[in-house]
Amino acid sequence: MKSFSIGVDLGGTNLRVAAVTPAGELLDHVSLPTRLSAGPHAVLDDMAAAIRQLIDKQRGDVLGIGVGSPGPIELPLGVLHHPPNLTGFDGLNLRSELERRLGRPVHVGHDASLAAYGECHLGAGRTHAVDSLVMYTLGTGVGCGVILDGRIWQGMRGAAGESGHGPIIPDGTPCPCGARGCLEMYASATSIVRRARELGLDSADDGDGSAPLTASTVAQLATAGDERALRVFDEAGLALGLSLAHLVNALDLPLYIIGGGAAAAWPLFAPRMFAILREGSYVYRQSMPRDPGVFEPGKTHVAPAQLGGDAGILGAALLPLATRATASA
Amino acid sequence: MKSFSIGVDLGGTNLRVAAVTPAGELLDHVSLPTRLSAGPHAVLDDMAAAIRQLIDKQRGDVLGIGVGSPGPIELPLGVLHHPPNLTGFDGLNLRSELERRLGRPVHVGHDASLAAYGECHLGAGRTHAVDSLVMYTLGTGVGCGVILDGRIWQGMRGAAGESGHGPIIPDGTPCPCGARGCLEMYASATSIVRRARELGLDSADDGDGSAPLTASTVAQLATAGDERALRVFDEAGLALGLSLAHLVNALDLPLYIIGGGAAAAWPLFAPRMFAILREGSYVYRQSMPRDPGVFEPGKTHVAPAQLGGDAGILGAALLPLATRATASA
Repeated sequence: MKSFSIGVDLGGTNLRVAAVTPAGELLDHVSLPTRLSAGPHAVLDDMAAAIRQLIDKQRGDVLGIGVGSPGPIELPLGVLHHPPNLTGFDGLNLRSELERRLGRPVHVGHDASLAAYGECHLGAGRTHAVDSLVMYTLGTGVGCGVILDGRIWQGMRGAAGESGHGPIIPDGTPCPCGARGCLEMYASATSIVRRARELGLDSADDGDGSAPLTASTVAQLATAGDERALRVFDEAGLALGLSLAHLVNALDLPLYIIGGGAAAAWPLFAPRMFAILREGSYVYRQSMPRDPGVFEPGKTHVAPAQLGGDAGILGAALLPLATRATASA
Repeated sequence: MKSFSIGVDLGGTNLRVAAVTPAGELLDHVSLPTRLSAGPHAVLDDMAAAIRQLIDKQRGDVLGIGVGSPGPIELPLGVLHHPPNLTGFDGLNLRSELERRLGRPVHVGHDASLAAYGECHLGAGRTHAVDSLVMYTLGTGVGCGVILDGRIWQGMRGAAGESGHGPIIPDGTPCPCGARGCLEMYASATSIVRRARELGLDSADDGDGSAPLTASTVAQLATAGDERALRVFDEAGLALGLSLAHLVNALDLPLYIIGGGAAAAWPLFAPRMFAILREGSYVYRQSMPRDPGVFEPGKTHVAPAQLGGDAGILGAALLPLATRATASA
């Protein structure tokens, strides 16, 4: 009978619940659609039922429950504020509502922070033996999580790690957040498709004929040499390089990682990203590894994430074990 | 007989040494020119002599010695790497050289970090009861210090807080650091004078006739309504607002303060700075105080520093008392 904790990844499309050992072994998991149209209380009922189901099935010692949610979420309180990907959840206290349903304490975090936390303790951070990192998640938007000395830096109200937003290119593309030229406007999967369309691409050929444009098919076009598709990823690399230059200069961390679906296009955006980072950050130039792909202790690294889509749920499961995880990092 | 610690502020022009109580009372201080032309060992001898002089005079319990130095300085090692304001000091181990001369342990920090540290525990941070802040120091350059949970965040090698550099305006003014459009190229005292000259100003009238152009005389011209001088401070406000937007989104701290000589021009640069920050950071918009000049607990504040030119030396004196200072914050 194993000890385990429960990690929950509440997404706008899917709700995933997993039982995870303190060492990061995923024992079992449940995935179901997030029934947004049924309202937040139906979603919370689904979540509580899935958690109970896993706990009953594992029959071990439950070490805690951690839930990752899209933002903005006020922490440590656990209240959602107009979350764009969870329509109808505004004002919901995710933590207390779930605690009431389960009769147990629940830890809540921001999904991008928890992905970074998972990578720090079980992924890229563990591989490279560092306990401070920033992780960008390139998905529908661009999430960002900051881990300092093994712990999530969540800021005063849980809003830290919003580096997907901010005027990286001051006169750039307007973002719904109110700024112009946010990283998210260049490096999210959504923006990669939008920008490809703006440049005149409207479909891709996946070998079996015309396929809808996605970040992945734009990447295929770029790999095949399409100039417009290459330009899209070059611009994503530019925006990532600028954002990294600011964070490297501000925080001087050993590791910055890039995850999320669109990060698979690493070979397409990385050259420009590293060029801009070298130019824009003398802190990076003073401590960059001889080969960006080879880890050297004491140097500044930018590398792909390692845990794929499980980073967030693993990080959520680690959250209630925070003291233990930090001590073992 | 009072307990005290020694704070040292090693500048490119002046070397200041002070005896400071743990509560931040400045008991005594010595100021002498930094004899750069005599070489680093002469400067270290001067520093050690001034420290001994103060210790002998106070005859109390010496709690520790903290030294603030211009960067780049590798920490916690204490080795200087091509410091632009300390010619001839490259490769010097400031810490071990001073420890050897004094026969006591010495703590070394980056001057901009120590100014932030002093402000956190004895200035703006204490006034507003917060223990996390970023401080920009607008002087010859733009220094920046990051204090998280009462402690200096110095980064992997002491290079954190280099937010005076980085491509804030990607196609902006080239900076000696290698980037274009660094904050330092717009908001330092040096850049305010340079930019004023570029716009055609070459002297100011201080009432007694023509006075040389300084950040202070450019500010006088702006206050008197000179359009070119106003534009210089407006551009400084733009760059500060962009830099703040990135840091607010990344870190979500309760307080960001601006000190250094050029910060006296607050009324001239603050309007544009706040406008850009509001536009560029939705995190700020969600938590800004109703009046930027009035502190509200739980909100995000940008405010002038409070300790003037003593912030750095007070922070240096607090450095060896770190545990005590953090606990009392």
